[in-house]
Amino acid sequence: MTTALTGHKIGFVGLGNMGAPMARHLHAAGAEVTVWNRSEGPAETAVADGLKRADSLPALAEEIADGVICVNLTVTEVVESVVFGKGGLSEKLHEDALIIDFGTTGVPATKQFAERVGGNWVDAPVSGGQVGAEAANLTIMAGGTDANFSRAKPILEVVGEKVTHLGPPGSGQVTKLANQLIVAQTIDAVAQALRLAELAGVDSGKVREALRGGFADSRILDLHGDRMVRRNFEPGGRSTWQLKDVRLICELAESIGLESPTLQNCRAMWEKFVVEDGNGDLDHSGLFRVYE
Amino acid sequence: MTTALTGHKIGFVGLGNMGAPMARHLHAAGAEVTVWNRSEGPAETAVADGLKRADSLPALAEEIADGVICVNLTVTEVVESVVFGKGGLSEKLHEDALIIDFGTTGVPATKQFAERVGGNWVDAPVSGGQVGAEAANLTIMAGGTDANFSRAKPILEVVGEKVTHLGPPGSGQVTKLANQLIVAQTIDAVAQALRLAELAGVDSGKVREALRGGFADSRILDLHGDRMVRRNFEPGGRSTWQLKDVRLICELAESIGLESPTLQNCRAMWEKFVVEDGNGDLDHSGLFRVYE
Repeated sequence: MTTALTGHKIGFVGLGNMGAPMARHLHAAGAEVTVWNRSEGPAETAVADGLKRADSLPALAEEIADGVICVNLTVTEVVESVVFGKGGLSEKLHEDALIIDFGTTGVPATKQFAERVGGNWVDAPVSGGQVGAEAANLTIMAGGTDANFSRAKPILEVVGEKVTHLGPPGSGQVTKLANQLIVAQTIDAVAQALRLAELAGVDSGKVREALRGGFADSRILDLHGDRMVRRNFEPGGRSTWQLKDVRLICELAESIGLESPTLQNCRAMWEKFVVEDGNGDLDHSGLFRVYE
Repeated sequence: MTTALTGHKIGFVGLGNMGAPMARHLHAAGAEVTVWNRSEGPAETAVADGLKRADSLPALAEEIADGVICVNLTVTEVVESVVFGKGGLSEKLHEDALIIDFGTTGVPATKQFAERVGGNWVDAPVSGGQVGAEAANLTIMAGGTDANFSRAKPILEVVGEKVTHLGPPGSGQVTKLANQLIVAQTIDAVAQALRLAELAGVDSGKVREALRGGFADSRILDLHGDRMVRRNFEPGGRSTWQLKDVRLICELAESIGLESPTLQNCRAMWEKFVVEDGNGDLDHSGLFRVYE
């Protein structure tokens, strides 16, 4: 049987909650997938599912040669270390290999990384969470040269439902940060609105229902508004990651001269909520608690 | 022909962009509608369309007797003056008359007004703008006793598509202010996100498209995001009215003890944009200009 990725050799680094199902979807689509993961368990599970495993990052780079290596890691520093650090991919990286970074990584760093691998870098941060990764219907915001985007596209289309090419390397990360800025601030707005209603003696569940479909409607009002009404702050999307993204947004805003008191206030809110009040493990809709 | 409001006697005060089509829909639904408007033109047009006209507010109150009087005015002070002021409705208001206030009026004031007319008050602020008023598909957030809401319901259902009863008098206004809080802050968030993208060299139209359907999606991203991308700030919804609503939100927040640095920042943004920079006649999506 020939499927979308038959004949493709793909490396996959980082088998977390999202990386693991994504690597499995690539395998199911016919690719020969070789994985590497810092901890043993996820790599062993992948092997049991028929994927290959590399003993080290340089060995993975050697195995993939001029193919595609996907990385799905948590923070910019880990991406740098895995690709360029001691014992990293770059020790054996083929000059024609293409790296696809599915994580949310800083914009200035992404541009540097792309230069350091001769341009063969596609930033492809995703939206949709673990549920989207498992269902292979992620929204993907991609940056890279036209040629590299074309090369990455069949892979992106296996794990994503909506794939948009925004421009040169870094453009995908810029778009993801625009997304996260709206999410961070809309969660805050919905939290205030529902709490305002409660304190004024009006049922917040009824208010949420009344607002659906109108100008105030959003995915955040729908999904996170419901969590706020029910006080269900199990993650979901951890507040720690929301703060990480808000910091990246501020870094980008500063580097391009976007001045925004709202953004300063937004950062102060999330810093206090996560760092000072210790709520990093709550779902980001838990920001509601600030108003209780 | 018998229609929804056959046999109803309804007064309508305030034939602005929204009030005029709403009064006409009530007439078309079979009600005998008597109007009053401060300026001549709209009242004359209404008479030409078959509606009745009262010479004064007390005359309108006398004509309607124990029926329903709708008011659709711009600010709290005008509502107070029209209902309770010298030459206002209350000079001849029947004790069983019901007032429906379609405007966005302050919450503490609404509760007072309701008391002053013996409880016969339904606050029914709307969302959907002039387009929604003309299409009779407004979203209506209603507050009032169960008995008065039942009395108002056939009228609300003629002009609105989605009618929700939130609780006692004032609850509709609370809900409308929750709506406006989300709108004011989401416009700001979308403005920052799109401008962040532009300053980082990414096409804001493409970013808006890439974000549609994801966690950052909202009616504001859809409608107002498009206005920002195209720099089309013709109203639409004037920034003057957005600021008026933000002030009402702050008044309510203070009266119930909701503390929010975000809300303080939001008010400061809109005050500067409208009062200091003189942008009150721009559509509220024009807040984007703050970031240019």
